[in-house]
Amino acid sequence: MMINLEKAAQLLLQHDDILILCHRNPDGDTLGSGFALKKLLQSLGKRARMECETEIPPRYDTLFGALEEQDSFTPAYVVAVDAADRKLLGTAAEPYPQIDLAIDHHETNKDYALNTYVDASAAAAAEIMFELAPLLGAGLDLRTATALYVGVSTDTGCFVYSNTTSRSHRIAAELISYGIDLGSVNKLLFETKTRSRIEIDKLALNSMEFLCGGAVAFVYLPLEALQSSGVTEDDLDGVSGMPRQIEGVRVGITLRGRADGSYKASVRTTDVNAADICARCGGGGHKRAAGCEFKTTLEEAKAALLKATEEVMLG
Amino acid sequence: MMINLEKAAQLLLQHDDILILCHRNPDGDTLGSGFALKKLLQSLGKRARMECETEIPPRYDTLFGALEEQDSFTPAYVVAVDAADRKLLGTAAEPYPQIDLAIDHHETNKDYALNTYVDASAAAAAEIMFELAPLLGAGLDLRTATALYVGVSTDTGCFVYSNTTSRSHRIAAELISYGIDLGSVNKLLFETKTRSRIEIDKLALNSMEFLCGGAVAFVYLPLEALQSSGVTEDDLDGVSGMPRQIEGVRVGITLRGRADGSYKASVRTTDVNAADICARCGGGGHKRAAGCEFKTTLEEAKAALLKATEEVMLG
Repeated sequence: MMINLEKAAQLLLQHDDILILCHRNPDGDTLGSGFALKKLLQSLGKRARMECETEIPPRYDTLFGALEEQDSFTPAYVVAVDAADRKLLGTAAEPYPQIDLAIDHHETNKDYALNTYVDASAAAAAEIMFELAPLLGAGLDLRTATALYVGVSTDTGCFVYSNTTSRSHRIAAELISYGIDLGSVNKLLFETKTRSRIEIDKLALNSMEFLCGGAVAFVYLPLEALQSSGVTEDDLDGVSGMPRQIEGVRVGITLRGRADGSYKASVRTTDVNAADICARCGGGGHKRAAGCEFKTTLEEAKAALLKATEEVMLG
Repeated sequence: MMINLEKAAQLLLQHDDILILCHRNPDGDTLGSGFALKKLLQSLGKRARMECETEIPPRYDTLFGALEEQDSFTPAYVVAVDAADRKLLGTAAEPYPQIDLAIDHHETNKDYALNTYVDASAAAAAEIMFELAPLLGAGLDLRTATALYVGVSTDTGCFVYSNTTSRSHRIAAELISYGIDLGSVNKLLFETKTRSRIEIDKLALNSMEFLCGGAVAFVYLPLEALQSSGVTEDDLDGVSGMPRQIEGVRVGITLRGRADGSYKASVRTTDVNAADICARCGGGGHKRAAGCEFKTTLEEAKAALLKATEEVMLG
């Protein structure tokens, strides 16, 4: 059932021993929001704990102590944060046939919980948590503010993406006034590249071809090079976004080899429908970011992608 | 003479036919602030014009119509915006022995104008202009708000750099509420790389060496490659900042060939004194960004830089 934020606050106030579930492959928003909710509830004298299927990357512990202050209890109330679908909670949700409350900012939220609050106009779930705090009668401290700042800045790409609003900035202004060490936080989140990411960038730039008069940038990353570089999914995601940042490029295609001999394509676009391109190759996704797989030769995969791209670009 | 912002507003209100000078090699802050000041003055019925030694890059015209609505007049009052030193105004200031008013956010402002307002706590001159508007009794419109947003976001690297404050975000929140097309503006400012910049990135990554156990990243850009890529100063500046973003790198050195046979080094650091390194090679600069030149062989230049870097790092 869809509820409003006041009702969500009321439900939280009525319960104790609250388990907060973040989505798997967690990012700064699900972790920042989940951690902040935990701290808000704890500040009201409740017991709370945050869980996630995936191990929490250590930088979130550096940033706001994500793994600290976990209470021990048998959950009496289960809350999902920033997860549009129960599936995204993964094994962390397995013991709980019912998710009692979902707090989310995805328009596509599947309404899987007993009660659901969705605000799709929020750039980040962290914006919702910020507005939930006064409704709970709970105050923020520096670490909670930092966690919420990490959430908002992660989901807006540090206030670059088009989902950024006046509200995102207003909330950031208020959070920063708690004394966040913005220089260090932003450096860790946005200005640090791993050595393996640098290797992949090099590989991508060296293989990059400009096609269709420069409207298409095509990158191929061979499996062997990926394996020897120690690259992570995070790194690969960043690389996929790079081609479409180039002046004149409307479609950026990154094709990479996989251990089973297949190929995986990530398509990122500026104004062309990426989902349409990938659908023609048996895949799918969003308008500006989609993907597909090929169990063919490299040449066949590339030819199929370029044919689909041209078809969609020509409308 | 140093004055406060109220006095600056008063001086502007007392004059007409106001020429606004931006610093040469203009960035989004000097142009955004200069344009906004022009529009504020014009909204009060005054004639105003913005000038700059350097031709204004077309993207600022795309962003907020930087070149539009220039009044014709013989200047009666000359205002410098975002320029710490008269020298930075270049030939644009030559006809004017006296700069009447300087509005700036650089702590190092040389107090070269008859009256000077400096607020070194402002991340951008545009923050000052935003606060000047109500003192002038002038309102913003969408284009003026966009120009100020471009100023604030440029000087904070889109709210990433450590100079970003709660005030920067609060001002951005207010500016965005005028209806700025944030997605397009940010894409043009922060998510677009030129083809020549991509060429230089490739060159830089392919030449990059990690020294001193990974604490130093050394990049060499040969003159011929720079010439054939059509690279701009803007592109080169971006490339120089890249090595120090790599995990573990404390000193990033970019050395490039110049047409006269000399070499120019740009040193960017995280926690090491870049000015000290460059001073040992006859150059200078700031703590985290400095430069020097070599009229030696490439090998000698590299050896001198690495020796200076090791000396400063060992402290």
